[in-house]
Amino acid sequence: MGVSLKDPAVQSYIVYSAILALKLIALSSLTGMKRITKKVFANPEDAAALKGKVNLNDPEIERARRAHLNDLENIPAFWLLGALYVTTGPVAAWATLLFRVYTVSRFIHTFVYAVVPMPQPARGIAFGIPYFIKWYMGIQVILHYAAAL
Amino acid sequence: MGVSLKDPAVQSYIVYSAILALKLIALSSLTGMKRITKKVFANPEDAAALKGKVNLNDPEIERARRAHLNDLENIPAFWLLGALYVTTGPVAAWATLLFRVYTVSRFIHTFVYAVVPMPQPARGIAFGIPYFIKWYMGIQVILHYAAAL
Amino acid sequence: MGVSLKDPAVQSYIVYSAILALKLIALSSLTGMKRITKKVFANPEDAAALKGKVNLNDPEIERARRAHLNDLENIPAFWLLGALYVTTGPVAAWATLLFRVYTVSRFIHTFVYAVVPMPQPARGIAFGIPYFIKWYMGIQVILHYAAAL
Repeated sequence: MGVSLKDPAVQSYIVYSAILALKLIALSSLTGMKRITKKVFANPEDAAALKGKVNLNDPEIERARRAHLNDLENIPAFWLLGALYVTTGPVAAWATLLFRVYTVSRFIHTFVYAVVPMPQPARGIAFGIPYFIKWYMGIQVILHYAAAL
Repeated sequence: MGVSLKDPAVQSYIVYSAILALKLIALSSLTGMKRITKKVFANPEDAAALKGKVNLNDPEIERARRAHLNDLENIPAFWLLGALYVTTGPVAAWATLLFRVYTVSRFIHTFVYAVVPMPQPARGIAFGIPYFIKWYMGIQVILHYAAAL
Repeated sequence: MGVSLKDPAVQSYIVYSAILALKLIALSSLTGMKRITKKVFANPEDAAALKGKVNLNDPEIERARRAHLNDLENIPAFWLLGALYVTTGPVAAWATLLFRVYTVSRFIHTFVYAVVPMPQPARGIAFGIPYFIKWYMGIQVILHYAAAL
C-alpha cells in the first residue's frame, strides 16, 4: 500500500509544490535585483565587484529578506505536511482546493509584503489562511497515524 | 521495491515529522504573540495597525527568532534524512526510538531557548542529541546507497 | 505506478540529498567553532558558560551565518524539486549528472563564501549553476504535471 503517481491528489500536490519551490527561490533573485539596483550589498567582495557599498540595514532590502525568510518558515513545512496529508487518502478535489488556496495565498503574501507593501491586515490574512491550512493538514496526519506514536 | 505505508517505521516517521512541522510553524505564533504583547514590530505597517513601534533589536523577540531559525536549520534536514533512512530498512523499533528522541529533544531545545531561557549546557545538550541523530541517519543512508555516487 | 528504490536516478537522488543534508547541518558546527574560537556569542547564557561576550555583528561569524542561510534558501528546495523530478522519468545518467553538479557547486559556494572568502564572480557562479538546475527541474515537473493544475 502506498501512494500512486496517478492519484489526482498526488499530482496536484506535485505541481503546486513545484510552483511554490520556484516561487521561494525566485525571492533570491528579487533580493539580488534590489541589491544591484540600489548598489547595496551584504559582502565587501560583492560591493567591490559592483562598485556599491556594504549596508545591512537598507529598509527595502531587509523587507525583501523578511519576505524570503517568511517563505522559508512556511513553504518547506507545506511540502512535508502536504506529502503526508495525501497519504491519508483525502478526497482529491478537497486536497486540490487546499493546495490551490495555499499557493495563491503565499503569492499574495509576498506581493503585499515585498513587491507593493500594503497596510495590514493584507499581509496578516495572506499569512493566516495558508498557516491554518498547514495546521489542518498536520492535525489530520497526526490523527490518521496516531497509533504509531 | 519501495516503502510501504503499513511499515511501522514509515508510520512512525510520518507522525513525528508532522508533529515537528507543527512545532516549527508554532514558533511563528510564539514570535507573533510576543510582538503583540510588547508592541514591537519589524514592519511599519504592523506598528501602525497595532499602535506599536518598529524595533529590530528587542532581546526577547530576537531570542524567539533565533529559536525559530534553529528549527529551520534542523527540522527540514530531519524530514529529508528520516525519510531516506526508512528506505534503508532499519529495525522499526530502533527507527521509532530515534524519531521519538529527536522530537522530544527539539521540544526541549525550544523550551530552554525561548520559553524559559536556561543556563548552558541545557540548550547545548538539547541541540546536540538530535544533531547527532541526523549525522547517524545521514551516514547510514550514504553507506547504504554509496554505489550510486 | 510509482518510483522504485532500484531506479538509479532515485538512488542517485537519495545519496546526493543525504550528502547535502549533512553539508547543510555541518554549517551549524562551522559557526559554532568560530564562535568558540573567537569567544563571540549570540546569547548571554552562552557567553557566561564559555567566558566570552555577546556580539551580533562579528564580520566573520555573520559571514558564516549568511552562508548557512543561503544553504537553507537553496538545499530544501533541491530536496523537493529533485524528488519530484525523478517521478517524471528522466534518463538516469542525466539526472545523476544534474545532482552531482548541484552538490559539487553548493560545496564550492560554501567554500568561497565562508571558508576561504574569494572575490566575485566565484560565489556568483557557484550560486548560479545550482540555482539554474533547480529552475530547470521545477519547470520540467510543472510541464509534466500541468494537467493537474
